[in-house]
Amino acid sequence: MALIVKKFGGSSVATPDKISSIVQRVIREKKEGDQIVIVVSAMGDTTDELVTLANKITSKPYGREMDMLLATGEQISIALMAMAFEEAGEKAISFTGGQAGIMTSAAFNKGRILDLQPARIFKALQEGNIVIVAGFQGQTSRGDITTLGRGGSDTTAVAIAGAIHADVCEIFTDVDGIYTSDPRVVPAAQKMESITYGEMLEMAKLGAGVMQPRAVEMGSRFNVPIHVRSTFSEEPGTMIQEDYAMKVKQYLIRGVAQDKNVAKITVLGIPNRPGFAYQVFAELAEKNVDVDMIVQSVRIAKEGVTDITFTIARTELPAAREVLAHIQKELSVEDILVDESMAKVSLVGAGMAGHPGIAAGMFGIFSDHHINIEIISTSEISISCLIAEESMEKAVQAIHAHFFKEN
Amino acid sequence: MALIVKKFGGSSVATPDKISSIVQRVIREKKEGDQIVIVVSAMGDTTDELVTLANKITSKPYGREMDMLLATGEQISIALMAMAFEEAGEKAISFTGGQAGIMTSAAFNKGRILDLQPARIFKALQEGNIVIVAGFQGQTSRGDITTLGRGGSDTTAVAIAGAIHADVCEIFTDVDGIYTSDPRVVPAAQKMESITYGEMLEMAKLGAGVMQPRAVEMGSRFNVPIHVRSTFSEEPGTMIQEDYAMKVKQYLIRGVAQDKNVAKITVLGIPNRPGFAYQVFAELAEKNVDVDMIVQSVRIAKEGVTDITFTIARTELPAAREVLAHIQKELSVEDILVDESMAKVSLVGAGMAGHPGIAAGMFGIFSDHHINIEIISTSEISISCLIAEESMEKAVQAIHAHFFKEN
Repeated sequence: MALIVKKFGGSSVATPDKISSIVQRVIREKKEGDQIVIVVSAMGDTTDELVTLANKITSKPYGREMDMLLATGEQISIALMAMAFEEAGEKAISFTGGQAGIMTSAAFNKGRILDLQPARIFKALQEGNIVIVAGFQGQTSRGDITTLGRGGSDTTAVAIAGAIHADVCEIFTDVDGIYTSDPRVVPAAQKMESITYGEMLEMAKLGAGVMQPRAVEMGSRFNVPIHVRSTFSEEPGTMIQEDYAMKVKQYLIRGVAQDKNVAKITVLGIPNRPGFAYQVFAELAEKNVDVDMIVQSVRIAKEGVTDITFTIARTELPAAREVLAHIQKELSVEDILVDESMAKVSLVGAGMAGHPGIAAGMFGIFSDHHINIEIISTSEISISCLIAEESMEKAVQAIHAHFFKEN
Repeated sequence: MALIVKKFGGSSVATPDKISSIVQRVIREKKEGDQIVIVVSAMGDTTDELVTLANKITSKPYGREMDMLLATGEQISIALMAMAFEEAGEKAISFTGGQAGIMTSAAFNKGRILDLQPARIFKALQEGNIVIVAGFQGQTSRGDITTLGRGGSDTTAVAIAGAIHADVCEIFTDVDGIYTSDPRVVPAAQKMESITYGEMLEMAKLGAGVMQPRAVEMGSRFNVPIHVRSTFSEEPGTMIQEDYAMKVKQYLIRGVAQDKNVAKITVLGIPNRPGFAYQVFAELAEKNVDVDMIVQSVRIAKEGVTDITFTIARTELPAAREVLAHIQKELSVEDILVDESMAKVSLVGAGMAGHPGIAAGMFGIFSDHHINIEIISTSEISISCLIAEESMEKAVQAIHAHFFKEN
């Protein structure tokens, strides 16, 4: 007898047949007394089709009306899935994000969950329903529909699991778990039985695309065990949970991550005075551009002048360029350089912190392969190196081979 | 400077191009200071497509989840139309039925509007927006999405016009107004400049399909002038309004209506005791089957036994047959006959009541054409005759020719 949240993505519910077969699976796996909440995304290409419609009407396909439009995608899925359960003889009820009590900020297209009031979900479960909630959406305090932006439906599922104190949040996906590295790059990559939130967060932030960082963060905050597993198989996948770290301190290294969505920006010849870096990064933050790695170097030859190099997601370059243009115009800098040919390779593991030999081992591999490291950044549980994108796969394979016993 | 509600049906907003051209028209016709609320239906065949999806999932495509599904159709239209206004440089905001304050009963698939709280509409208008509201939908007091059933978007438009005290509610349709009879049957039918609610209601109930009776009733209740006009032309159509009746008492006859959606049911050999008819009609009402004309005849030859004949909409026969089967089983009646080959022809006009000669004139025409009248029913402003469907067109043409000066 358990309280379980299950999340199915768009490809899992792309057709009426697929919806019906998911429903059959949920019923088959449901044990006596289990209470089930299902979070679903829009069917297959629905969201893309809605975006295409909007593009035929407007040159500004964002803002409040875009959320009003896109939210219909998930609303269609939840209604159809509830019908499919009823057709199969199970009581079910669907809720939009707002009906499920998901209250967000009024930031359209990228709403953040501020509160989750699960009274209706509880009541519906007590009445014997399977509860189906639209992913990727919520509503503001004045009743406007919002969408959650990146991480969308995963975040909805984990937030609900946290709010109702679910025993587990199952994320169904097209891979069967979390691997020590991307199996397409490293054929010897191994599926992990378990991983901590912190490690998963590093893996996700560092480019492992299985789960969105925001959803993992939320899982950590509410201590929700997250089970990442395959839509196509009933085998267990990988558990993301906290207590695991205690049990298996012996695992120093958990995985090798790669990320090509990186752009390196260098601002040359900055007057070396306080507040300059602040101004650059504040303007970027205002445009929702996250800065990742940062290095600053003072030039010996020319006193009072410094260079700053930092990285952002390559997909955020359009927004960043506006800020850079403004900086170049307003402040007297020598030049600004943008490099889109970089990638980041990271080693992740909760046990790494007290073992300096690991970093040394990693740098040694880069050296052996004549790969130049442009920036290094470290956290409690990861080491990341910025290198040329063309060397990325070779680096990941070599690091994986070095740190994991490959079969 | 006026406060105007405009309603556009699904064929008017079937494609992004059509939406954009409606937006252009609204902007062109808008005068300085006008405040505009637009009610829209789902785009073209969207509703049918959603029904098709539901039919692939369930054998019971109705209830709460069906409304959750169907409501997405209008939500897509309003979002796109708001975007189209913004693209054209006009401030606009879209509201779902619930956001617009349309509170309905919890009767899914056929919700009735119980209350309309227009605070958000007023606020949005004051802020300079064109307000776009999803037709055909509302929400219950607990926040469930409902659809309004028959009359849908027309009813939404008229209800909003009433709640905000609009100067006029414009219903855009594929005909250019209300005619004295169906122009496809009576080529000499004339477009009316104006008609009263009562007359329009009779015309609508009696089969003139331009507007749904429920919307006309609501217009009458809130005294909203309704302008029925063409989507394809900027010519004025027909005004439905009250004061017109005062001005033009001289118009005795307003139109000739026809209705083929009629089934005649005869219950033979009923024990002539109190409560029997009540039981039959109460059971029909429970299944939402409206009874229209009724005659009861006591048989002279066999004392204590009576026959009842009544008519219902032919489309409601499946539901009625269940009741009839139950009646035949439970109560000792001789037989029940169903006749689906009948039609109803009606003469409508607010000035008719005190002129018995009109009824006589109408019956004379039936007699001249050897058309047998099965049932006659009258109201303050109409006379209806049940005749064989095959004679319907001939009867309508002859009555129109008799009562209207045809050019």
